[in-house]
Amino acid sequence: MTILLAVTGWEPEAWLERFRALSGRREVRLAPDLGDPSAIHYACVWKPPAGLLATLPNLRAIFSLGAGVDHLTNDPALPDVPIVRIVDPDLTLRMTEYVVLHVLLHHRRMKLYEKQQSERVWREHADPAASEVRVGIMGMGVLGCAAADALKGLGFQVAGWSRTKKAVPGIELYAGENELPPFLARTDILVCLLPLTQDTRGILRYELFCGLARDGALGGPALINAGRGGLQIEADILRALDDGTLMGASLDVFEQEPLPPESRLWPHPKVYVTPHNAAQSDPRALTKYVLAQIERFERGEPLENVIDRTRGY
Amino acid sequence: MTILLAVTGWEPEAWLERFRALSGRREVRLAPDLGDPSAIHYACVWKPPAGLLATLPNLRAIFSLGAGVDHLTNDPALPDVPIVRIVDPDLTLRMTEYVVLHVLLHHRRMKLYEKQQSERVWREHADPAASEVRVGIMGMGVLGCAAADALKGLGFQVAGWSRTKKAVPGIELYAGENELPPFLARTDILVCLLPLTQDTRGILRYELFCGLARDGALGGPALINAGRGGLQIEADILRALDDGTLMGASLDVFEQEPLPPESRLWPHPKVYVTPHNAAQSDPRALTKYVLAQIERFERGEPLENVIDRTRGY
Repeated sequence: MTILLAVTGWEPEAWLERFRALSGRREVRLAPDLGDPSAIHYACVWKPPAGLLATLPNLRAIFSLGAGVDHLTNDPALPDVPIVRIVDPDLTLRMTEYVVLHVLLHHRRMKLYEKQQSERVWREHADPAASEVRVGIMGMGVLGCAAADALKGLGFQVAGWSRTKKAVPGIELYAGENELPPFLARTDILVCLLPLTQDTRGILRYELFCGLARDGALGGPALINAGRGGLQIEADILRALDDGTLMGASLDVFEQEPLPPESRLWPHPKVYVTPHNAAQSDPRALTKYVLAQIERFERGEPLENVIDRTRGY
Repeated sequence: MTILLAVTGWEPEAWLERFRALSGRREVRLAPDLGDPSAIHYACVWKPPAGLLATLPNLRAIFSLGAGVDHLTNDPALPDVPIVRIVDPDLTLRMTEYVVLHVLLHHRRMKLYEKQQSERVWREHADPAASEVRVGIMGMGVLGCAAADALKGLGFQVAGWSRTKKAVPGIELYAGENELPPFLARTDILVCLLPLTQDTRGILRYELFCGLARDGALGGPALINAGRGGLQIEADILRALDDGTLMGASLDVFEQEPLPPESRLWPHPKVYVTPHNAAQSDPRALTKYVLAQIERFERGEPLENVIDRTRGY
């Protein structure tokens, strides 16, 4: 019943300490020190080395420690065991914070007001009410729905778009490729929280930006991507910002991370760059979630939030 | 039944147009062109010249067109007629937006991340969850309660402080001078939405900042003032920022407005300066409110949201 912890790009100490503190007599190992691989039943991972999980003959379940599972599904040697996504109130609230903050930054034109401050200029502009601004959220999973609710509470007109039709009380829903154009045409601020799959890779491209509302109260559309860097074509975002197709962008994720120093996104006056910290995985909150799932599984109950491999999320 | 419109510091055209469009056969005059003063029954004002209202012998009610009435109560010749405050969902949502935006800017350390962006630095910091951060709102009127609700929905620990004890479901309430110290001691982000009265003038001073929480998850307290400039001592804010008593500030209002170009607040790296635009009065929304009140009053019904002159709000 041993747990393997394997994370790349994160400091593993806080996770290891937390897992060891809460896992009772259960052994917790930190990759690459696997010990006897046959003793390992559970792998708790973030971007594990490709092929690592295939070396564990008795693996029963894989837990992804951050939002999204594309870091796993890209591994051609991924063993055929359940993969559990993180669904946690802490992660959800952090993502909601990020989305609300960046929607308000564009809605309230903070780039303009910060520039005025730097020039000691006191000038009010006629700001639209939230009720005049249409936010569109691509990806209406747990994170998308929570962000939609918070934005609706602030008075925005909120709609969502997802792969398949869903019912979300109080939110106008669009689904599938056919309903993407009307969804974009009514959207002033586009928030992308999609999972990265074969279908969504590169979806945030110039043609899509051209479909956003041109008649909005903000004077032009804005893009917020807190999903995955692979969803966006950065050359297209820059083109759209430079020719006025987009008025602004908030990007937490990038084609290559860390964002290379030579990227023109860094100094762009219309762009907020954040270092993939929209919704940090907090070991204190998430370790409990994983251990509770393992205990439930060992009592014979089903795992929750298991991904569908054919969908890719 | 003529209406006088008298505004200082605002462009009157949008107001005049809106009042004329909605007031039917009722005459609307724009100060200083009073015509026959005895025909004027209602004054709709923002910072009217002192003494102007005393020249209207048949005045029945005064409507303040923005949040706050200190622009009126400072007039020693103010006639003894009801003064109506604006209480409007549009104004309330705009103020909630401002408070949520600025709480999140401090909570998510956007000054730090924007500095990193300007230096092309990719670095995550361990950000606290909202549940670890205590927001304290001074002034629990309509605006304070709405902001408190929105912040609670995002997961913050929210408390309020007001002159007299109130019951606000789900919000911890402190009241009066005796409960100010414990309120401050549990507050990481202080939001001030107080009215400006004899009791509150200069309340945001160095001694108050020293009473804020020193042990918070953000590493130090932040101040957000969207009430009135007269509530704050700007020299004390600068002192507190410079010696680390405050970690940051968002100021929408100032002792003198426009904020003079020589103010050290403009270039301060820890300060957001906005030009008193937290909650703009929107003629489209507010004119309806005023005219509906006048019609109600003329049917013999009482005016709503009449201020108590002894309290000053």
